[in-house]
Amino acid sequence: MHGAGGNTGADDARWLAAAARLAARGRPLSRPNPAVGCLIVRDGIVVGRGWTQPGGRPHAEAAALAQAGDAARGATVYVTLEPCAHRAGRGPACSDLLAEAQPARVVIGQRDPDERTRGRGMERLSAAGIAVATLGCPASRASLAGYLTRAERGRPHVTLKLATSLDGAIATAGGESRWITGAAARAHVHSRRAMADAILVGGGTWRADAPGLDVRLPGLEARSPRRLILSRSIEAPGIEVLPAPQAIAGLDAVNYLYVEGGAQTAAAFLAADLVDRIELYRAPIVIGGGAGAIGDIGLASLAAAHGRWHLAERRQLGSDTFEAYRRQGQDQPQDGN
Amino acid sequence: MHGAGGNTGADDARWLAAAARLAARGRPLSRPNPAVGCLIVRDGIVVGRGWTQPGGRPHAEAAALAQAGDAARGATVYVTLEPCAHRAGRGPACSDLLAEAQPARVVIGQRDPDERTRGRGMERLSAAGIAVATLGCPASRASLAGYLTRAERGRPHVTLKLATSLDGAIATAGGESRWITGAAARAHVHSRRAMADAILVGGGTWRADAPGLDVRLPGLEARSPRRLILSRSIEAPGIEVLPAPQAIAGLDAVNYLYVEGGAQTAAAFLAADLVDRIELYRAPIVIGGGAGAIGDIGLASLAAAHGRWHLAERRQLGSDTFEAYRRQGQDQPQDGN
Ligand SMILES: NC(=O)c1ccc[n+]([C@@H]2O[C@H](COP(=O)([O-])OP(=O)(O)OC[C@H]3O[C@@H](n4cnc5c(N)ncnc54)[C@H](OP(=O)(O)O)[C@@H]3O)[C@@H](O)[C@H]2O)c1
Ligand SMILES: NC(=O)c1ccc[n+]([C@@H]2O[C@H](COP(=O)([O-])OP(=O)(O)OC[C@H]3O[C@@H](n4cnc5c(N)ncnc54)[C@H](OP(=O)(O)O)[C@@H]3O)[C@@H](O)[C@H]2O)c1
Repeated sequence: MHGAGGNTGADDARWLAAAARLAARGRPLSRPNPAVGCLIVRDGIVVGRGWTQPGGRPHAEAAALAQAGDAARGATVYVTLEPCAHRAGRGPACSDLLAEAQPARVVIGQRDPDERTRGRGMERLSAAGIAVATLGCPASRASLAGYLTRAERGRPHVTLKLATSLDGAIATAGGESRWITGAAARAHVHSRRAMADAILVGGGTWRADAPGLDVRLPGLEARSPRRLILSRSIEAPGIEVLPAPQAIAGLDAVNYLYVEGGAQTAAAFLAADLVDRIELYRAPIVIGGGAGAIGDIGLASLAAAHGRWHLAERRQLGSDTFEAYRRQGQDQPQDGN
Repeated sequence: MHGAGGNTGADDARWLAAAARLAARGRPLSRPNPAVGCLIVRDGIVVGRGWTQPGGRPHAEAAALAQAGDAARGATVYVTLEPCAHRAGRGPACSDLLAEAQPARVVIGQRDPDERTRGRGMERLSAAGIAVATLGCPASRASLAGYLTRAERGRPHVTLKLATSLDGAIATAGGESRWITGAAARAHVHSRRAMADAILVGGGTWRADAPGLDVRLPGLEARSPRRLILSRSIEAPGIEVLPAPQAIAGLDAVNYLYVEGGAQTAAAFLAADLVDRIELYRAPIVIGGGAGAIGDIGLASLAAAHGRWHLAERRQLGSDTFEAYRRQGQDQPQDGN
């Protein structure tokens, strides 16, 4: 293990978490490929880093190896997802590239659920005499939430966004909803849109607000995602219409779906158990008798409501509060943020 | 100024804040008197401390002077409220006691709005050769919120409590509201009841839940406050009925009123601009289509809702979040908590 980086469990977890932060740079433009991060470490020093490039190629490992050159030999490679074993038309498999580069060790954050790779990437590395370790790495899972949700649940990862008053209204009784939150919260929403592959609103919101559903942040305008409407009746040129929440399973190249309401749409996704993350912006205002944030979800009793959501993040955006809640459950891929 | 404690502005503010924390011990049993705190400091060392005792006597200054004895001479006295100048049947005026004890300096957190004392307490101290300073001290004002609200607005300080889901429901559509929040939040509510002079619920909640409105915390059972109902129709033995929110102005010996809902009652108090503090317990649950937390308050537009509330406190109670919002405004006595 001459020349390898730190190899205690705690060091490994820290390097993998750093690789997961790199991976976030690939989201969402790596689609349809997962956004992977890779760090090559030698004597505690980073000699190569990479993340999945727009369109999905080069892969993170290829980018990091190209940067490291000969320094990869004997080093430790940290990669958030098991290196691929299938040679695609667009380039060699990463496990082959790694076998050639001969690092001492490869530490993997998450095994690949893809049938074509699962376990095979690791076997190929072992066969090349490289030590391989897989860590159950929450940061890696979080950074792969879209890809893992697709693999494990056959649909995109769904974030439901709500902007409410203190008393949980998303609009006044008269339907006024601009604006409940302030400028900082609204800019944050735009940055979240830029991280999604597609945005969806319900037909009611489409009719009431004619929302732009684009990214109005300087320099990020081109990151405006695909726009979708949930509706049984609308036909709109240049916009896709989904007839039911379940139809998201058929969306091609959508790993991250951002659902922006309204109340009926939120309820339809929740009732179908299709929400992985709730992102709540709360303004310090009282509306009183306004439109509730979420319609009927068919809750049988109060007891049935408990234990489903877990606070994952909270921050202040001007005078508004941003909170992210994620779906509870052991097997649940934690969400990327 | 020989022997006086620290006398920079920052030191003064810190000692006054400490006196305000002492004052909190007097709430609510000092009623009908304000809960005042007093610290006597000599060479940076506390030689006497006091707070208003149950029933309102002894006053904080008298208690602190009794503790300090001769050490009060030449020391600095920090007191959250201007020392009283009116000799009551139950004891001498505090400004007389102080004049006799001859501290070098008295630092006052808040001038007394009471006509019988306003300015006179300070004059008496000055006449006795004692240096007197009045600081605009937010901590003192906060600890006196009930007393100041009564003096400045002619009514008790009102806290509105709500326990809601993430989507702002205080009950399911079927009226189920036990329990939205967990044990830690419910215990916190009981500790807040123990700090109030009276609790109020609406007739609807009284009929639906027959709430105990008592303090069920070991050792604090005796602190259960007066119970009130807002109702145009109910007659209940052993419980006072208020016919309108405005009737709180006539409540004797109530400085702190704790309003526990439901939605119509919350709306009636808010519409009448009678709420000083909102205390919100939020559980990480989604109800969907539930009963909204606050009924119609006659809001003219969304713009009119902004700028009225300010986040004053936030803490986690198990998986629930507690937040206190206070009414905005320069002249507003900050709330005690
Ligand atoms: N503050 C916020 O965060 C926020 C966000 C969004 C909206 N809003 C406000 O919310 C209000 C609109 O909310 P809303 O609840 O009335 O409308 P909505 O959820 O936006 O849209 C309801 C419509 O969605 C379609 N739909 C709902 N469930 C469906 C299902 N299971 N399958 C297929 N289609 C389904 C139907 O469309 P068709 O009728 O076309 O068939 C239905 O009429 C507006 O006032 C808007 O300003 C606020
Ligand atoms: N989660 C929580 O924090 C919480 C707290 C409390 C209650 N709740 C739930 O809330 C529901 C009850 O709420 P609610 O809105 O139906 O009832 P409510 O506010 O408790 O009571 C409404 C009643 O209050 C009286 N009232 C209201 N405004 C008045 C005014 N301006 N002047 C005089 N009297 C007035 C009237 O009483 P009369 O009809 O008697 O004349 C009215 O019917 C229940 O489901 C309860 O479980 C939840």
